[in-house]
Amino acid sequence: MQINAERLWARLAALAEITDKAEPWTRRSFTPRFLEGRAWLEKEFAAAGLAVSRDAGGNLVGHLPGREAARVPIVLGSHSDTVPAGGRFDGTLGVLAGLEVAQSLQEQGIVLDHPLEVIDFLAEEPSDFGLSCIGSRAVAGALTQDMLAMTRPDGMTLAEGLAYVGGRPDALAEAARPRGAIAAYLEVHIEQGRVLESEGRDIGIVTDIVGIRRERIVVSGRADHAGATPMNLRHDALVGAARIIDAAHRKAFAGGTDDKPMVATVGYLVNQPNAANAVPGRVEMILEVRSGDELAVSAFTQELLAAAAPALAELGVSATSSLISHVPPTPCAEPIRTAIVRAADGLGLNHRAMPSGAGHDGMFVSRVGPIGMIFVPCRDGRSHAPEEWIEPEQAATGARALAAAVLELDRALAR
Amino acid sequence: MQINAERLWARLAALAEITDKAEPWTRRSFTPRFLEGRAWLEKEFAAAGLAVSRDAGGNLVGHLPGREAARVPIVLGSHSDTVPAGGRFDGTLGVLAGLEVAQSLQEQGIVLDHPLEVIDFLAEEPSDFGLSCIGSRAVAGALTQDMLAMTRPDGMTLAEGLAYVGGRPDALAEAARPRGAIAAYLEVHIEQGRVLESEGRDIGIVTDIVGIRRERIVVSGRADHAGATPMNLRHDALVGAARIIDAAHRKAFAGGTDDKPMVATVGYLVNQPNAANAVPGRVEMILEVRSGDELAVSAFTQELLAAAAPALAELGVSATSSLISHVPPTPCAEPIRTAIVRAADGLGLNHRAMPSGAGHDGMFVSRVGPIGMIFVPCRDGRSHAPEEWIEPEQAATGARALAAAVLELDRALAR
Repeated sequence: MQINAERLWARLAALAEITDKAEPWTRRSFTPRFLEGRAWLEKEFAAAGLAVSRDAGGNLVGHLPGREAARVPIVLGSHSDTVPAGGRFDGTLGVLAGLEVAQSLQEQGIVLDHPLEVIDFLAEEPSDFGLSCIGSRAVAGALTQDMLAMTRPDGMTLAEGLAYVGGRPDALAEAARPRGAIAAYLEVHIEQGRVLESEGRDIGIVTDIVGIRRERIVVSGRADHAGATPMNLRHDALVGAARIIDAAHRKAFAGGTDDKPMVATVGYLVNQPNAANAVPGRVEMILEVRSGDELAVSAFTQELLAAAAPALAELGVSATSSLISHVPPTPCAEPIRTAIVRAADGLGLNHRAMPSGAGHDGMFVSRVGPIGMIFVPCRDGRSHAPEEWIEPEQAATGARALAAAVLELDRALAR
Repeated sequence: MQINAERLWARLAALAEITDKAEPWTRRSFTPRFLEGRAWLEKEFAAAGLAVSRDAGGNLVGHLPGREAARVPIVLGSHSDTVPAGGRFDGTLGVLAGLEVAQSLQEQGIVLDHPLEVIDFLAEEPSDFGLSCIGSRAVAGALTQDMLAMTRPDGMTLAEGLAYVGGRPDALAEAARPRGAIAAYLEVHIEQGRVLESEGRDIGIVTDIVGIRRERIVVSGRADHAGATPMNLRHDALVGAARIIDAAHRKAFAGGTDDKPMVATVGYLVNQPNAANAVPGRVEMILEVRSGDELAVSAFTQELLAAAAPALAELGVSATSSLISHVPPTPCAEPIRTAIVRAADGLGLNHRAMPSGAGHDGMFVSRVGPIGMIFVPCRDGRSHAPEEWIEPEQAATGARALAAAVLELDRALAR
């Protein structure tokens, strides 16, 4: 099966041009610019022969009937919103690759057993309401009344925002799909990292969307005059924090496996009183651990602090941790991964299994049906930045792998 | 020789009460409150039988003639200004202990060979003009025209400020004393640390006012997505900084000697981009090293970064340093230290040699004549805070040691 690489690339370029001109590439959810993008997408969906609808959760859905009407659909998709000053491919590639597959199927007279849907999920990126994955939450029945009451800085509620983009906040139950209502969900996305590029791979086949646990670690010592306090009388919280930071780095390096790699990051740190002539008395930091291995993620901080205890005691400082958030890993389904591997092998692609370190709509869609993801390399791993870039051939490769995987799954899935 | 411990304590309490009521204990230089304190001091100086003058550098000077008019004076002193919300003893103890010694000498009919001066140096604490030790700089001839042009936030120049407190900015040369014009300078001060208290000592005899070197260290890595960047592809600047911080702590611990202890502090650290989900790309920190050992202070940072180089290379990060400031150590003169030791032994005091980790007016006075300092313990090492506290007996002990040291020096010094 062929896909039209030029058409896919032209659409990526056209949708990217629908941006806030002062701050490319920006198409924030719940803005006029977002609706402009949606209007363009709707036109393209229709031109490709898809029946277009909007669900109550504000998702744009293109439908292509299958041969067997009783089957639940195979769903392809991603999102068309961006972060501020983001890139041209994060999200749009998954929507437009899905559209390209649907259109090519029709052009080549291929009718699937399953219905096919292409979905542009609403607001996958963190929205101004402080919530992400809004459309996919709605599909999973996980968009709550509390969430609808969240407000953005100008006072608009998410319920009002949802109505603004064509959703129906009073009829959210209609958007929620029961478990089993999706045969398979497939998303093509840029990697947003440098693994595929550095190894010269064509695609990555996602094993898990990693679990993410964030804990606040507070190291307590004693602020003292840096001149008048000899080394042996100090309780330097920053030296304690330094030992924890280095230990976390080494532990994550040692703790991951090829199958379930692990990352640990202290990305946020505030030192107090933070004066050149004061021994630090208190350090607050956020430790983030990500892995597909739920147990390893859950145990990381406690193990880390237990191992660091002697080094902290030597300094006369203490460390406590408190949970900020914990999102368990979302495994990609084995049958879907197998279908993508077969598709990739059939196309002669150089591929590898890898986790997705970032969150995606699949985390919520997985509550309805099995999911899989295809990563394509992006230049120097840059994403969420204007420099985000992929080559036309890389976009086409992702769409070809998606098309082949859809054909595999259509044959392999029982219903 | 006796001193009047009750009078000393009463004066400490009375001067402390001259404070901004809303923020005790505050008597900032160049304010009406400061002049109120000065007026009280002038009255006390006069009541004690001292001839009072103000020099061109804004210092309040009390004079007591000696038997041999040709001799240069022994000078006792400190400062009456405070930091905002500071304590009741930092500075005032040195001025009022000096006053107590001068008054007791007269009351007991003891006439020294040397003239005696008690000086309240202007603005030892960092002033709102951004300069400290203003009066002692003037005595050393080190208050420059550039400094006089410094402004405080309301636009007043230091020259104007100096005139406000009774100095004569146009006649600064009159305040400057030539080398050799002071026979000995002695200052009693609270320790501002916990060494004496933790060891149960009565006084500390200062060996050096330590050298202070500050360097800015920038660790450069690469900011990356914390989820999408595996451990082996990271260049985590904060992990690099952590290794430097821990190494600096260990190096200072190992590097000092009993005679010349050393402290190293990373007190200031800014992490970028400082987001929980971003691998840190850049860390800026200030490393401060203090010791009486000039060579060790000068070489510290370069040695530290050279030793850390392999650990940084392993992380793929680099570190550079740039000098912010370097103040060489000021040794206390051997004859003065010896006189204080004899005085303390004569009084049966439990004493130890120790560096001053903080700066004092003696740094500048030492350009004119030999200096020595006597530290008294302060509760829990607290200073520059309202809780700063010493017991009446500790104040008296400092004054007794000062009096005995003055008698020792008056006998020992040739001129």
